[in-house]
Amino acid sequence: MALQVRLGSRMSSLVSMASVSKSLIFFLLSTLSILPTYTHPLDPLTPTEFTKIQSIVHNSYPKSNHSIAFHYVGLEEPTKTAILSWLEGTATRTPPRQAFIIARINQITHEIIADLSVRNIVSDRVYGGYGYPLLTFEEQGTANALPFKYTPFLESIRKRGLKVEEVVCTSFAIGWYGEKRRSKRVVRVLCNYLDGTVNLYMRPIEGITVTVDLEEMKILGFKDRSTVPMPKADGTDYRESSQKPPFGSPLKGISMHQSDGPSFTIDGHAIRWANWDFHLSFDARAGPVISLASIFDLQKQKFRKVLYQGFLSEVFVPYMDLNEEWYYRVFFDAGEYGYGLCAVPLEPLRDCPENAVFMDAYVADHNGTPVNMPNIFCIFERYAGDVMWRHTEAAIPGKVIREVRPEVTLVVRMVSTVGNYDYVNDWEFKQSGSIKVTVGLTGLLEVRGSMYTHKDQIKEEAYGTLLAENTLGANHDHFFTYHLDLDVDGDANSFVRSQLLMTPVTDHRSPRRSYWRVVSETAKTESDARIKLGVAQEDLLVINPNKRTNIGNFIGYRLIPGSVAAPLLSDDDYAQIRGAFTKYNLWITPYNKSEKWAGGLYVDQSRGDDTLARWSLRNREIENKDIVLWYTLGFHHVPYQEDFPVMTTLSSGFELRPANFFESNPVLKVRPPQPDNWSNCSRA
Amino acid sequence: MALQVRLGSRMSSLVSMASVSKSLIFFLLSTLSILPTYTHPLDPLTPTEFTKIQSIVHNSYPKSNHSIAFHYVGLEEPTKTAILSWLEGTATRTPPRQAFIIARINQITHEIIADLSVRNIVSDRVYGGYGYPLLTFEEQGTANALPFKYTPFLESIRKRGLKVEEVVCTSFAIGWYGEKRRSKRVVRVLCNYLDGTVNLYMRPIEGITVTVDLEEMKILGFKDRSTVPMPKADGTDYRESSQKPPFGSPLKGISMHQSDGPSFTIDGHAIRWANWDFHLSFDARAGPVISLASIFDLQKQKFRKVLYQGFLSEVFVPYMDLNEEWYYRVFFDAGEYGYGLCAVPLEPLRDCPENAVFMDAYVADHNGTPVNMPNIFCIFERYAGDVMWRHTEAAIPGKVIREVRPEVTLVVRMVSTVGNYDYVNDWEFKQSGSIKVTVGLTGLLEVRGSMYTHKDQIKEEAYGTLLAENTLGANHDHFFTYHLDLDVDGDANSFVRSQLLMTPVTDHRSPRRSYWRVVSETAKTESDARIKLGVAQEDLLVINPNKRTNIGNFIGYRLIPGSVAAPLLSDDDYAQIRGAFTKYNLWITPYNKSEKWAGGLYVDQSRGDDTLARWSLRNREIENKDIVLWYTLGFHHVPYQEDFPVMTTLSSGFELRPANFFESNPVLKVRPPQPDNWSNCSRA
Repeated sequence: MALQVRLGSRMSSLVSMASVSKSLIFFLLSTLSILPTYTHPLDPLTPTEFTKIQSIVHNSYPKSNHSIAFHYVGLEEPTKTAILSWLEGTATRTPPRQAFIIARINQITHEIIADLSVRNIVSDRVYGGYGYPLLTFEEQGTANALPFKYTPFLESIRKRGLKVEEVVCTSFAIGWYGEKRRSKRVVRVLCNYLDGTVNLYMRPIEGITVTVDLEEMKILGFKDRSTVPMPKADGTDYRESSQKPPFGSPLKGISMHQSDGPSFTIDGHAIRWANWDFHLSFDARAGPVISLASIFDLQKQKFRKVLYQGFLSEVFVPYMDLNEEWYYRVFFDAGEYGYGLCAVPLEPLRDCPENAVFMDAYVADHNGTPVNMPNIFCIFERYAGDVMWRHTEAAIPGKVIREVRPEVTLVVRMVSTVGNYDYVNDWEFKQSGSIKVTVGLTGLLEVRGSMYTHKDQIKEEAYGTLLAENTLGANHDHFFTYHLDLDVDGDANSFVRSQLLMTPVTDHRSPRRSYWRVVSETAKTESDARIKLGVAQEDLLVINPNKRTNIGNFIGYRLIPGSVAAPLLSDDDYAQIRGAFTKYNLWITPYNKSEKWAGGLYVDQSRGDDTLARWSLRNREIENKDIVLWYTLGFHHVPYQEDFPVMTTLSSGFELRPANFFESNPVLKVRPPQPDNWSNCSRA
Repeated sequence: MALQVRLGSRMSSLVSMASVSKSLIFFLLSTLSILPTYTHPLDPLTPTEFTKIQSIVHNSYPKSNHSIAFHYVGLEEPTKTAILSWLEGTATRTPPRQAFIIARINQITHEIIADLSVRNIVSDRVYGGYGYPLLTFEEQGTANALPFKYTPFLESIRKRGLKVEEVVCTSFAIGWYGEKRRSKRVVRVLCNYLDGTVNLYMRPIEGITVTVDLEEMKILGFKDRSTVPMPKADGTDYRESSQKPPFGSPLKGISMHQSDGPSFTIDGHAIRWANWDFHLSFDARAGPVISLASIFDLQKQKFRKVLYQGFLSEVFVPYMDLNEEWYYRVFFDAGEYGYGLCAVPLEPLRDCPENAVFMDAYVADHNGTPVNMPNIFCIFERYAGDVMWRHTEAAIPGKVIREVRPEVTLVVRMVSTVGNYDYVNDWEFKQSGSIKVTVGLTGLLEVRGSMYTHKDQIKEEAYGTLLAENTLGANHDHFFTYHLDLDVDGDANSFVRSQLLMTPVTDHRSPRRSYWRVVSETAKTESDARIKLGVAQEDLLVINPNKRTNIGNFIGYRLIPGSVAAPLLSDDDYAQIRGAFTKYNLWITPYNKSEKWAGGLYVDQSRGDDTLARWSLRNREIENKDIVLWYTLGFHHVPYQEDFPVMTTLSSGFELRPANFFESNPVLKVRPPQPDNWSNCSRA
C-alpha cells in the first residue's frame, strides 16, 4: 500500500489530513511489518517511532490544554563511543534509541529527548535564548493564506489590476538587524503572480509586505510601499507542455545501462559497493547524512575507517539587494527551512539514470505525525565515459603496452528545493578511495520586479542584472558548509597544512635559481586552522599521527576544494554575524557532539551567538584528537539572461582523497567491469 | 586495406620502414580515393598532401646532397579574413592550401611555406635565433640506442649489476640555464630498467647521464656520478595480466548505450550536434584544434559565432628536484615533444564508451612521409546521470509541478602520452551553449631512485615524497596554456573584468551594513588584462561591445576557471623565463596569426625571447578588437603513495559559458532525449 500522504501540494494536504487516521494507519502497518524498522543505531527514525514520539510528547503535554507544534524531530544519535563499541562488537548493551525534538509548547521552545525503549521523555529543557526553531510547512502554509482574507491586501492587489485568484504567497524568515528587543516569531509573507505561467518567481508582486505573527497566526503588519509594473508571463513558463515551436532537434535516446543490475547492495540503510561500506541516513534539517564510511584495503585485508559522519550543516544564501522588501533576504536553508524537509521526490530517468534504485524518507509533520517522502534518494553506479587510469608505453623497443581502466563510481543523490532554488546533492564514492561531494544549483532565480525595460534606463545601483523587461535578477551568494568528521583510520587525527613555498637556490653549483618545496605544519589549536582558501598554495590534510605507512609517511586524507568564494559582507554586518561560519572556508574543531549546526541550533532570527565561529573562539587543542573539518563551498552569483526563466545547473564539488592512506594505488588491483553485451534486442 | 604503418613501437617501425614504398602506397590509394581528402580549408593535411609536401621540399633540396629532417609539418592556415569570407560565401577565390614546415636542412633550421596548389615553396626563411624545433621520434629513438654501443655506459650498467638487455633509454630536452654560448642541438639520454616489470619509470637508473649530439648522432658527453639502489620490480607492474590475488570484486557491466546511434553527424572534419557546429582538426604540436564553433540560436533562427579557434598552446611541466640529473627536467610537452605527435590510439570501451565513434589522424615522420595514427580521437555523447535543469514547484495550492531535463553533452577526446604521463583531453559541448575543456592527468610519475627505504632516514631536502623503498616521487607542476580565440557573435570583442566589491552601506535608513556590487572595467590595453586568478572575486567576460541583447546587456561569454595554480619559481629563474607565459593565469592579446605558441616557435633550448609574456609587453590595444584569451590551467603535484605505481586520473577543467549571449535560457526549448527502451534482450 503506497502511503501517499504527501500528495499534491504539501501545504494543503498536510493541513487538511487528520492526524488520527494517519497514526492509526501507521500503527496497523507497523504491526504487519510492512513499514521500515530500524536495524542500525544510526538509522533514521521510522514511521512507527515517529508515532511513538508523538504519543510520548502528548502524554506529558496533552493536546487538550497545550498548543504543541513539532518543529524538528530527528534521531538523537548515541554517543560516538557507543556507536564505535557497537560496531566493534564490544558494546555491553545496545545503544539507546532516542529522538531529539524541538517543539513549541504554549509558545515556549522545548528541547526534548525522548527515549523510545522506555517510552518516556528523559530530558526536557526550555530554551530561552535568541532565535527560533525551523519553520514548519504547515505554519507557512497557514500564514501564506492569511493575506487573502485581509482587506488592505486585497485592495492592494486590485489596485495593481491583478486577479487575486492568481496570487501565490510564500513566507520569508526575517533574520535580525541589530534590534535589541527580541522579536516575536514572525515571517514576512511576500507574494507572486501566476496568470498565464506557473513560474511565479518571475512575476513578483513588489512593494507589498505582510508580516504575520506565527503564534497568534494573524497579520501583525501590512505595508504597500510602491508599485512597479508586473513582468509579463510570456516566456516564463518552463513546463514542457507549455513550450511553443521552434524547438531544437531532440537527441537520440541514451541510457546508462546495467544488464545484470547494480553492483551495490542496500541492507536497510547500510550500503556496500566495490570497496566501500557506509550508512545513509536522512535528517529533516541536513538532508543526507553519510556515516561510518570505511574502505576495504585489499593489501591489509580489512576495512579501514575514513569518514565517521558527513552532512551539510548549513546553507547560507545572502542577497545583495538593499530595497526595503529585499534587504532581509538572507536565507539559512537548513536552519530556517530544513534542507531535508524541502527534499523533493526524484523523477526516474530524468533526475536519475535508468539503473538507479530509489529510497524513501520520513519526516514528522507539525503534529508529529510521520509523513512518507517517496523517492527522496536515488543510488546509482555512474559511468560517465571517464578514465580511472591509463598508460600507453611506447618506449620499450618492439612492443607497445596499453592499459586502460574505465571509471565507475557510486552516487547517492538527493534534491532539495527551497522555494525557487533546486539543489542537486551528490555524494560520490570512488574505488580510488575518494569521496566527492557535489552540489548542483538549478531551479529559478529570485527576481525583483522593476520599472526598467532596458539597461540604459538604469542610472543607479540596481543590485543585479536586468534579465528581461521589468525583471531584475538580484546578486546573491550561496555558501554550503559541510560538517566532515573524518576519522582517518581511527579517530585521533591532526590537521596538517602543507604549504608549497618558493625557495631561492643559494647553492651556486646548481643552474637552478628557485624551486618550491613543501613545508608542513600541524595545527595545534583551532586558531591555527582557520583558513581562507585561494591565498596560499597548499595541500590540506587530515592525518593520523599515530599511524604511518610501511615506509614512514603519516597516513591521511586530503581535501581538494571546489568553488572558492569568500564572503563580501563586512564582519559586523548582521547577516555576516549570523553567517560568521563562512568567514573562513575551512575550520577545524575538536569533536563535540553538540556542535552540529554551523549557524547555531536556532537559526530563525538568530543573533550569531551559537555559530561555528563562536565555538572556534575557544581555541581548543586539535592535535592528535578526534577532530572535525568544517568546509564551505561558495558561489557568488551575478545573474545573466541565461538564468531566465530557469537556471541551467551550475555545479561544483570538493573531494576527500586518500594521501598516503594506502601503501600503493588501490585501483591497480581493480579489474575493469565486464562490458555490457547485448544481442537480439528490439526496441519496446 | 588497413594502412598500419604505425605498428608496434613507433621508434622501430618508423626507423625501419622505407619511405619510398610508403609514398607509393599513399599515392596509389589517393588516386583510388580511399584516403581522406580535404574539403574544408581548416582540415588537417591529408596523407596525399604530406606526400606532395615531401616531394616539394625534395625538389628544392634533393636528398642526394642535403641532409633533411622534417621536424614539423602542419597546415599553414589561410588568414582569418579568408576563412571568414569562405564561410560566408563571399570569397572571390578558394583560400590557398598551404603547409608550414620546419625542417633542419644541413643542420640549419628552415621555416618553409609550401603551396599545394602551385606545388612550390612560396617562402623559405632560415631561422638563426635561439632554440630548436620539435624533437622527432626517429632522432630520439636513434639517440636512445647509442649508449648500448658505448663502452663506458655498458661498464656503468655492469657495475650496477644490471642486465643491459633490460635497459630502456629515453631522451630529455636540456633547456637553457643562462649559458651565453649557443649549445648544439643535443639531448640527455637517461635510462630506466625493466627486469620483471614493464613499469620502467618506477626503476630509474640514477647517476648516469649521456649527452647526445642529435646532428652528428654521437655521444658528446658521459658521466657516471653516483649509484643508488635500484627500486625493486615487485609491485610496479600495472598490466592486468601481471596482477596477483587478492582482487577487488569486479563490478557488474555498465555501458553508455544508444540504441538508435548517436545524434551527431561527422562530415569529414565538420561536426554537428544538437545546436553546435564546429570543425575538429589535428596538429602535431597542439593535438586537437577546435575551430569555427558556432551555436544555433533558436530564437534568432541562425548560427552565431562563439569560438573561432581553441587549442592547447603549450604544456609546461617543471620539476622541483635540484639533483644533477634532475634540475633540467623542465618539460614543454607541446613545443619540445609535440602533444599531437604523442597522441595514442584510444582503446574502445575503456578509453571511450560503447557509443563512441573514432577518428584517425595523420602526421609526417622525420622524412616527411605520412604516418597513420588510428583511433586518435573519439567522439561520443555523454550521459553521466546529471541534471541539466530542474524545478519542483510546491507553492501553488493544489498542485505540484515538476520539470526535469537530463544533461546530455558531446565529448571530443584525445589522449597524449608524453613519456610517463598520459593526458586525457576532453572538449565538451553543452546544449546550454557552454564549452567545457577538461584535462585528466594519469599515467606514471617520474621518480628518483634513492638510498632511502624509510622516511625517517631523510634528513635533508628530498624534493618529493618517498613512495616506496628507494623510490622518491618528485614534486612538480603542470601548466596547460590554452589559446582561446573567442569571437563572440563577431570578432570585435572586448575583455571585461566584473569585480565583486564589498561595499559599505552608508544610508542609515537601511538595516544592512554592507553588500557587494559589481564594478566592471573594460581592458583597454594588454597590461589591463594580465590576471592572477584567485586574488580578486570577479567574473571574467569576453563581450561584443557592438551587440547587445534586446534589453541592453552586452552579449558575452564568461570564463569559469578550473584548478588555479600560480608558478612558484622566481621570475628570473631560467625555467620561468622560458615559461613566463604562466606568470599570469590569463592574458589577452589582439589577434595575431603568428602568435600561436605561448612558449615561442622554437622551444627546445629556448631562452624565453618569443613567449606570450614578451608579446604582451607591447601593451597593444585590446578594446573592441579581435582578441584572444590565453588561459592557463595549473596543478601543483606533491606525490603521494597512491600515485605509485600508477596515478589515478586527476581532472580539472574550465568552462566558457554564455553570459547575456542569449535573450533567455536556450535550454528551455530543449526537449529531453527519448529514453532508450529495450525488450527481448539477451546477453551476447
